[in-house]
Amino acid sequence: MTDLLATRMAALEDREAIRDLIARYGPLADGGDCAGAASLWTEDGIYEVGGFGSYQGRAAIQALLEGESHQGLIHGGAAHVLSPPVIDLDGDRATARSYSVVFRKAGDSWEAHRASANLWQLVRTHEGWKVAQRVNRLLDGSADARALISGEAS
Amino acid sequence: MTDLLATRMAALEDREAIRDLIARYGPLADGGDCAGAASLWTEDGIYEVGGFGSYQGRAAIQALLEGESHQGLIHGGAAHVLSPPVIDLDGDRATARSYSVVFRKAGDSWEAHRASANLWQLVRTHEGWKVAQRVNRLLDGSADARALISGEAS
Amino acid sequence: MTDLLATRMAALEDREAIRDLIARYGPLADGGDCAGAASLWTEDGIYEVGGFGSYQGRAAIQALLEGESHQGLIHGGAAHVLSPPVIDLDGDRATARSYSVVFRKAGDSWEAHRASANLWQLVRTHEGWKVAQRVNRLLDGSADARALISGEAS
Repeated sequence: MTDLLATRMAALEDREAIRDLIARYGPLADGGDCAGAASLWTEDGIYEVGGFGSYQGRAAIQALLEGESHQGLIHGGAAHVLSPPVIDLDGDRATARSYSVVFRKAGDSWEAHRASANLWQLVRTHEGWKVAQRVNRLLDGSADARALISGEAS
Repeated sequence: MTDLLATRMAALEDREAIRDLIARYGPLADGGDCAGAASLWTEDGIYEVGGFGSYQGRAAIQALLEGESHQGLIHGGAAHVLSPPVIDLDGDRATARSYSVVFRKAGDSWEAHRASANLWQLVRTHEGWKVAQRVNRLLDGSADARALISGEAS
Repeated sequence: MTDLLATRMAALEDREAIRDLIARYGPLADGGDCAGAASLWTEDGIYEVGGFGSYQGRAAIQALLEGESHQGLIHGGAAHVLSPPVIDLDGDRATARSYSVVFRKAGDSWEAHRASANLWQLVRTHEGWKVAQRVNRLLDGSADARALISGEAS
């Protein structure tokens, strides 16, 4: 009985840890802690950003966030808001799917500058759960973004 | 002690399962998996959509999502983003309240096409938690939408 | 073993209770239950609202929500949408950081009227977890709002 409880507890803790990991991205990105944001990934993790490109490794992800585009965004006023993710656990690996909406200050209000689908490939490491790959695609009507959010992407 | 732990665990698992059920709606709706989205409801479940109408049964809900209005929306670029819900458990039944914001591609950015209150009546079935009724009302200042989100709807 | 499980369970329950507390703010604020919204705070809790001011005590917070500005907003059509929070537990105290976006009906759609960083100081009381202090700052590019969301605020 206690063994079964421990197994059920571990599943809840894994889901909580993954939810926490994903929730930390926006605050680090908007706060300008670029190394902190990059450390959510594994050492050789991949961040594929719709409309930008694919970045592999913490140094490349940190450099992306330190670049002119992201820095201009956060210094002009921005909020990288991520939705509650759909999480599918599979032992020491997991996938999560979530929306991200980037709001940007525009005049007296904010505009939804980007609305994207995100597929997260997560892995349990000795440092806890980390992002092995995050694929982000703009929800602009394209079939690949729709496949990504629905879990049908290959 | 172990019995009490099991009871507390079950409550956490119920909340997690309901959170997961609700989080799956957007990805299925935006991905165009209309049968999958409808299967979140019970066989005779109800989806009342503010500004559209009331749809009962999985077939009717699937047909709504396969219809011109929803298909036009997702092929033009859309994100059905749902907020973290407020969940109230009551044995084999539960209610949840959440916001939904539908973003629609408009020019170079996205506009908040709909911002709604949602009241979910949930029920535990042999297939797990399902939606018995989802009432969606546009937050346009009307008293009934405000009552719905605050939990004061009759 | 059972003791350890109980400790782990308590941590999950604390996180769930804090998530629930924060998720209740929007529905109470938009539903116009101003006393209910104020009761999320401790008796002498503080709500510092970017662009408005600092309000201490449940009566002051209730009065703020009963005031012309908030009432005009919700009667014109509004959604106070809060993101999944980042939660850091520390015994009987905790902090949480989240985004809030206030959508306001504008013509045929909604505009993001406010996009803010929120730092929540939470405390366990005999009534459960309550908000000791919520600091809200507009994400308009200012350094203090960025520090708040990234957890670097003093």
